[in-house]
Amino acid sequence: MEEKMTVDKIKQLLTERKLAELKDLVGDLHPADFSEIAEELSPAELIEIFKLIPDREKIAEYISMLPFELQSDLLKAMSKEQASEVLTEMDTDEAVDLLAEIPPEESREFLELLPKDEAAEIKELMKYQENTAGSIMNNEFVALPEHLTAAQAIEYIRQMSPEAEMIYYVYVLDQKKRLIGVLSLRDLIVADPQKKITQIMEEDVISVLDTEDREVAARLISDYDFLAIPVINKQGIMVGIITVDDIIDVLEEEVTEDIHKMVGSAEFYYEDRLIKTSSLQRAKARLPWLMVCLVGQMISGKIIEIHSGILQLVLALSFFIPIIMDMGGNIGSQSSTITVRGLATGQLRLHEMWQNVWTETKVGFFIGLLTSAIILPITYFWQKDYFLSITISIAAFITAILAATTGTLLPLIFTKLKIDPAIAAGPFITTINDIINLTVYFGLATFLFSYLR
Amino acid sequence: MEEKMTVDKIKQLLTERKLAELKDLVGDLHPADFSEIAEELSPAELIEIFKLIPDREKIAEYISMLPFELQSDLLKAMSKEQASEVLTEMDTDEAVDLLAEIPPEESREFLELLPKDEAAEIKELMKYQENTAGSIMNNEFVALPEHLTAAQAIEYIRQMSPEAEMIYYVYVLDQKKRLIGVLSLRDLIVADPQKKITQIMEEDVISVLDTEDREVAARLISDYDFLAIPVINKQGIMVGIITVDDIIDVLEEEVTEDIHKMVGSAEFYYEDRLIKTSSLQRAKARLPWLMVCLVGQMISGKIIEIHSGILQLVLALSFFIPIIMDMGGNIGSQSSTITVRGLATGQLRLHEMWQNVWTETKVGFFIGLLTSAIILPITYFWQKDYFLSITISIAAFITAILAATTGTLLPLIFTKLKIDPAIAAGPFITTINDIINLTVYFGLATFLFSYLR
Repeated sequence: MEEKMTVDKIKQLLTERKLAELKDLVGDLHPADFSEIAEELSPAELIEIFKLIPDREKIAEYISMLPFELQSDLLKAMSKEQASEVLTEMDTDEAVDLLAEIPPEESREFLELLPKDEAAEIKELMKYQENTAGSIMNNEFVALPEHLTAAQAIEYIRQMSPEAEMIYYVYVLDQKKRLIGVLSLRDLIVADPQKKITQIMEEDVISVLDTEDREVAARLISDYDFLAIPVINKQGIMVGIITVDDIIDVLEEEVTEDIHKMVGSAEFYYEDRLIKTSSLQRAKARLPWLMVCLVGQMISGKIIEIHSGILQLVLALSFFIPIIMDMGGNIGSQSSTITVRGLATGQLRLHEMWQNVWTETKVGFFIGLLTSAIILPITYFWQKDYFLSITISIAAFITAILAATTGTLLPLIFTKLKIDPAIAAGPFITTINDIINLTVYFGLATFLFSYLR
Repeated sequence: MEEKMTVDKIKQLLTERKLAELKDLVGDLHPADFSEIAEELSPAELIEIFKLIPDREKIAEYISMLPFELQSDLLKAMSKEQASEVLTEMDTDEAVDLLAEIPPEESREFLELLPKDEAAEIKELMKYQENTAGSIMNNEFVALPEHLTAAQAIEYIRQMSPEAEMIYYVYVLDQKKRLIGVLSLRDLIVADPQKKITQIMEEDVISVLDTEDREVAARLISDYDFLAIPVINKQGIMVGIITVDDIIDVLEEEVTEDIHKMVGSAEFYYEDRLIKTSSLQRAKARLPWLMVCLVGQMISGKIIEIHSGILQLVLALSFFIPIIMDMGGNIGSQSSTITVRGLATGQLRLHEMWQNVWTETKVGFFIGLLTSAIILPITYFWQKDYFLSITISIAAFITAILAATTGTLLPLIFTKLKIDPAIAAGPFITTINDIINLTVYFGLATFLFSYLR
């Protein structure tokens, strides 16, 4: 592995104090590669390495790829002047993330190191609530005054380029800093150099409000194939941009959160390495839903107890509890998961709700039909009791239909009630289905065995 | 809703034959907005609308947002000449997708409409297997010969701009068309105009092989925050680029596939609307795993039957089957899902396997401890049998630990064996856990009740 070789090489150069060679090696790495390597190095080694890199911007890029705690430790190990420079060079959204995640006293200390205006900007950004568009934006965008020509605009971008994160979209602001148009660098390059930018710009700018959910920004960038989207405040003043690379991270995080919710786990916080979360953190995230389900399981037990008369008579009924419970659970999870994912990607819309419930009911019908056709001969061969076999087959058939229907219906109802449908998938559906299906199974058995046999 | 208003307006203008006004309205829409609206219109209405748009490129952009079947119908409704022009204007990756998805005879007809070289290019791209990097790339990139200066390169880009999908990264090729460097438009704009591009370019180009899995390309773009990645063939010749917007779609599709697999469903094909898949398609995707699990459920039943002696003696043991089964199922699904997602995002690595299994075992321990502490008094209060309560508590405790451990271990073993770990989550884990946990439960009960009471 190449990465392994680089790590070994770095450690060797450090031990042998071949610092010039080391400087060349690490100064050339891409930040993403650096972060891979940094995982294998100790904080002390990292501090030594950062001392070798004269370029503050490079250090800032490298450091912002590391876990927040380590970022904070490394900054504290630097001279005040150097730490201040590195923080200033960091993308504002990265600096804000860092300062929001570390203890308040530490973040206050870092803020004091910064120039006044920079500190004020960061404090402003730190006010945004988690998961809002404002919380993931940065303010390193190119804003043009409206009177420029295309040629002047390109010259302006050339000068702004070192500071701006994204120069391929540029925004035109009026005197009150309100967003009035957008241009791509492509438009500018192709345009007649003497043309006014106001003549070239697109005036219908698709933007997102700073207080909006960050998922809205993600959805817009993804639907419109944008490289970035401008963020405005209530007054229409442009306050930042969100770039497509931040959006990919948002989409991945949201999906992880959804997937965890689907199995009844809150997302326990892990910035980049799952292994760093302790067993206690993980247990805490999962316990609430497991406890709710425990109540449901007791109810299921109570239902069996209520029917213990028939169970005493036909003990073999208990052998088929796993089929009824698991079939209901599996089909219900499938239906709810497909529905939840469809809603999340926009491939299923709320107005298609009843049509989707009906389709899934038919799915349950087909699956139930096939399953009971298989169960009937097998259980007969096993228990030699055609009455029992028929009971189980009918119960399995009904279970499949009910599970598919409730599995689809519940997430949709949750969405209507503005509750996150993801929590309706998985354990919750399974527990509800158990209660319903065990009632059907034992109710049916009691009826058939007591009245018909 | 704005979208609804636009649809009504379009329909009204069509009926009233106010075609000039209609032309202005639809000619100005963003393709993403158009696709939303197109869903509400009939194919006949769409054909009429396309007749009003003189700009073939606009039609190509609009049409490539629609479902493939509809794309094909619309192209067939056009004159041969127009269809050919629209196909030529489509991004190659979109044209290839279309021609690959429609029946071969239709796609052959369309290919015959195209200019020879264009048709040859598309045929070349259609050879790539699904899910490879080659299958999602397009060939509308800017390739520069190595002798240019920065100023000449900008001029070159200006001319290429209408044809290239992505002009913000430009690639330097040698005479044999091998990729030797990459530059961003930003580098070019900032650079001294007289400097050779070979002096400015980055020589260590991160690229992807055309036959590689498309997920590799997605991962690279996402890790390195690229806007595009070049695709090369085995000879090092640059054959295309993959852009970040295509990657977002790939990531979403892969996640949907993973999520479906986690509940034991193959991904039934749906291009953009879930509702369009029939109940039969859905049932077919889900049946295989349900049938596998049915076998497991029979084995679980058999385990209960083997212990029917103790069940006859203590019928109340059956009331707690739901607790044992569901607890095992839920905890197992949580552990496996967290593991599978961690592997998919790279937040869990294979060399951390044993550490992760150990952490999850401890999670099972904590959850088991708390659950059995709750179960003990409740079951005693319910059944007034301290021996039974102790049995169930111990079984629940062991179940929690075993479920967490197997739930984590199985996906990791699957990964080692190069089997997709997603199928180890959900129904499969639940079934395995049922067999293990029912064995423990009834084994323990038989032992305690037969030998100690």
